[in-house]
Amino acid sequence: MTISWQDTAKAYVDARDSCIPAELQLSKLPASTILDVRDIPQTCGQLSSLDLEITGSESIESLLATLREGTWSAVDVITAFIKRAVIAHQLTNCLTEVFFDKALERAKYLDEYRSRTGQTVGPLHGLPISLKDQVEVEGVNQSMCYVGFTGRKATYNSVLVEILLKQGAVLYCKTNMSQGLWFGEGYNNLFGRTSNPFNRNLTCGGSSGGEGALIGLRGSLLGVGSDLGGSIRLPASFQGLYSLRGCYSRIPYCRTSNSSEGQESVRSVLGPLSVSLDGVKIFARAVYDGKPWTLDPWSPKLPWNEAEYHLAEHGGEGGQLCFAFMEDDGVVRPVKPVRRAMDITKEALIRAGHKVIDWKPFKTAEGFALLRGIYNADGGRDLETQLALSGEPRLGYLLTAGARELTTYELYRLQDRRSSYIKEALDHWNATVAETGTGRPVDGIICPVSAGPPGRHNSPRYIYYTGWCNLADYAACTFPVTSVDPSVDTRDEPRDFRNNEEKHLFEEYDPEFFEGAPVGLQVVGKKYEEEAVIRMTEIVDAAVKSFSKN
Amino acid sequence: MTISWQDTAKAYVDARDSCIPAELQLSKLPASTILDVRDIPQTCGQLSSLDLEITGSESIESLLATLREGTWSAVDVITAFIKRAVIAHQLTNCLTEVFFDKALERAKYLDEYRSRTGQTVGPLHGLPISLKDQVEVEGVNQSMCYVGFTGRKATYNSVLVEILLKQGAVLYCKTNMSQGLWFGEGYNNLFGRTSNPFNRNLTCGGSSGGEGALIGLRGSLLGVGSDLGGSIRLPASFQGLYSLRGCYSRIPYCRTSNSSEGQESVRSVLGPLSVSLDGVKIFARAVYDGKPWTLDPWSPKLPWNEAEYHLAEHGGEGGQLCFAFMEDDGVVRPVKPVRRAMDITKEALIRAGHKVIDWKPFKTAEGFALLRGIYNADGGRDLETQLALSGEPRLGYLLTAGARELTTYELYRLQDRRSSYIKEALDHWNATVAETGTGRPVDGIICPVSAGPPGRHNSPRYIYYTGWCNLADYAACTFPVTSVDPSVDTRDEPRDFRNNEEKHLFEEYDPEFFEGAPVGLQVVGKKYEEEAVIRMTEIVDAAVKSFSKN
Repeated sequence: MTISWQDTAKAYVDARDSCIPAELQLSKLPASTILDVRDIPQTCGQLSSLDLEITGSESIESLLATLREGTWSAVDVITAFIKRAVIAHQLTNCLTEVFFDKALERAKYLDEYRSRTGQTVGPLHGLPISLKDQVEVEGVNQSMCYVGFTGRKATYNSVLVEILLKQGAVLYCKTNMSQGLWFGEGYNNLFGRTSNPFNRNLTCGGSSGGEGALIGLRGSLLGVGSDLGGSIRLPASFQGLYSLRGCYSRIPYCRTSNSSEGQESVRSVLGPLSVSLDGVKIFARAVYDGKPWTLDPWSPKLPWNEAEYHLAEHGGEGGQLCFAFMEDDGVVRPVKPVRRAMDITKEALIRAGHKVIDWKPFKTAEGFALLRGIYNADGGRDLETQLALSGEPRLGYLLTAGARELTTYELYRLQDRRSSYIKEALDHWNATVAETGTGRPVDGIICPVSAGPPGRHNSPRYIYYTGWCNLADYAACTFPVTSVDPSVDTRDEPRDFRNNEEKHLFEEYDPEFFEGAPVGLQVVGKKYEEEAVIRMTEIVDAAVKSFSKN
Repeated sequence: MTISWQDTAKAYVDARDSCIPAELQLSKLPASTILDVRDIPQTCGQLSSLDLEITGSESIESLLATLREGTWSAVDVITAFIKRAVIAHQLTNCLTEVFFDKALERAKYLDEYRSRTGQTVGPLHGLPISLKDQVEVEGVNQSMCYVGFTGRKATYNSVLVEILLKQGAVLYCKTNMSQGLWFGEGYNNLFGRTSNPFNRNLTCGGSSGGEGALIGLRGSLLGVGSDLGGSIRLPASFQGLYSLRGCYSRIPYCRTSNSSEGQESVRSVLGPLSVSLDGVKIFARAVYDGKPWTLDPWSPKLPWNEAEYHLAEHGGEGGQLCFAFMEDDGVVRPVKPVRRAMDITKEALIRAGHKVIDWKPFKTAEGFALLRGIYNADGGRDLETQLALSGEPRLGYLLTAGARELTTYELYRLQDRRSSYIKEALDHWNATVAETGTGRPVDGIICPVSAGPPGRHNSPRYIYYTGWCNLADYAACTFPVTSVDPSVDTRDEPRDFRNNEEKHLFEEYDPEFFEGAPVGLQVVGKKYEEEAVIRMTEIVDAAVKSFSKN
């Protein structure tokens, strides 16, 4: 008798569920009509006041400080996050794998180490970090959310995991993603769908959607996603979080599973999502300083650069910065709440004494065609191969059904056009030196993460507000700005749409349906400018917060 | 009437020849039976004593110093090299394009700048640099040595040329290469064959063969080659020169023409060949400090690192280093003169107080199969496309005739296997920490550049003693050690050969035929370790020189 993929998936998820201690589970789930579930961790009674205090930590640095000082033990901390992660999972279906025993054992080791030596293991000592399902943890299931991969276990740690452990982190769970990482939700046939805790009728975004939902509910304060077209930044932005899409391999990708392994025309990157911007910085610094290039042959030899963080190449700390605002990429005009977020940020920066100019988008349609060409270069063969293992059906919308697989020579031609394009794009950026008045090209570009707020489930999404950074390998840091307010974020008047994506966005947008949905933006810097981009985002974020208060 | 490719080539070369002033040409060429032509520049009477003094400069630094101090003007210097390059060309057929007028104009500008400001333009002020034919110089023919590309001119400078000009260099000629850069000689249908000035019956090596012959005759002291499997290092070694194969894009490749444009599975790199090791260092430092990443989207953001040059990661200046010697890669055992070069170097390093251990080659056959798989991935379609433009025939031996073009998905699988392989290779290197006694993995690997001395023309060559560095993207610096001495470099006894390459090398080797042919080795370091590799090569080179004197 053949077992159907549905039965395989059900058995797998049942087995996973049996690893979640019953006493951690909510006895009563909220009705599915309860859309905003953000208060439930506080109100459900499952979490002690200590648990709530720990998981409510204002920043990653404050949490690390309590661990360093011993106010809270690593066991206290991981226990609280395990409990809260289970609640988050019951509310949004965000987890894929749990390895709580391993995490508790690790936390005990860290506590013993600290009490024995008086030292911490590393800069991340005791910090719980959640991981997107694709990241390899030795001994833990490695399904990649494919039904056909059930039964596989990681036989080694990914290089990133090696470094996080060396730096003191505690790993405890993996999170949901879209099938094959190929679209902007958290949905696949094995684990099902992850919802947005702000409004469960909305998508959590993706492909790192489980991270978005988990961190959105503070079942984790810092997690690892991956980004090939926006997959870190979209879920971060859709849950009001901060995130970083750094440059190829600066966060080591080696020995992390991926879809289309060996696809190198545009490289997926790993990076952090966090409740606070300091989480992004602390993560990046700890990983860069963990010398990933000694373990990952693709990682550039770039330790954390404190001078560049202090804007050595951007006029220095306290100087005037010049930001370019991309209000419209020329293909899909953002809807009202996103435009409002841009206006707030622009006004905040002007008040803070910085310069702003308009960004002239560089050949958006051509860039997006190149990116889609690369996504589709194998004609979907990698995805079809994995789906065929179980017979599970294909989901999502980013890959073009029936795309023709290119030959190698055709791929070379495509890659060559991409290289010419990104050279021209760099020259385009450099040419802004004529407009800034600072003697430098624009320091950063501020643009939407998405043309709209988190959309409905199963609704195709235009992803080139994030994708252009993937094509050119620019560093980008996202930050939350506002949320949909129906009283001001009204519908636009109908107009002649430039294309279907723009029309679809307009038609999907409904101020009442999207009420409260978070809206974020990103600061984009050049390749290898992660440090400066983080610092600029701190400056922008502080300006926005100060502006919003007044 | 159709013009044959032969006629097109002849007309093109005639036109090029007409750009070489008649008064610079030798009135009488040496008989073709004169094989060693190295003395002819001194004896032919075409060069003044000043020309001979300039072109005989001991080092790049000493030449630059005379230019800085104004002992010699930039015009003096370029004039001498133009004259000597023409002689070198008549003896070996090494040049493809000449733009002497442009060079003299540039030199005049530099002299005027210096006399007006008292300053130099940059660290390379007045230094003549020759370029492999593929490098784009605005306004200069850009044939790529294809008959079908005749008539093309570069409409911009390559990024490297931009940086060399910014740093003060004088560019004056381009040099011959193998057809499509696809084999280790300097031979194509447009410009014909370049010979080795040590012995014109031998190959100059390649694909940067013209650079090897030109610099071998001091028609240039420093030139730019490219290396996808050994194409810088082979001609350097075959003409007794120094050279550097640095890591992908550290020397910017952007806007330099290439064969198989868009092939990114193993990236070709640009790099220097020079009569002296300081030329390699000066070139690398000037280019890295020229911030190539601001102009080339692929260049890593790595300025020259003086601390790493002083071996910060290898025990510091004056410390004991541990080198691993790869005597035999397990596939092709080197012939006697190469083994003797290894013995000399090993003994020299031991006497200089360094440690040496044996290098266990890492899966050589598998690595070479991966590299060849990548070379052949497009089934030769790029090459065939360019050849079809004129109907010129295919030359060379590195590509497999009739190779099947891979599909994109197959290329992904191949790239993925390559990535796993280089990760394992890195782990293999790191594991040597257990053997060195220094607390570090081996600091550098010393190995042949080629299993034999420069071979006969048209003779296939095993290239994996260089190719393994291309696959793993290791930094490698070559240095000359000795030359074939028939009294000691006798034939080996026949034996059971492991494969045809090994048998071919054995059969080709003839101590009398190869008498005087140069033999060089290389110091191989990890990715991004160019600075340390240059310093280690200085240490090794000094040890060998000191040992050979005693």
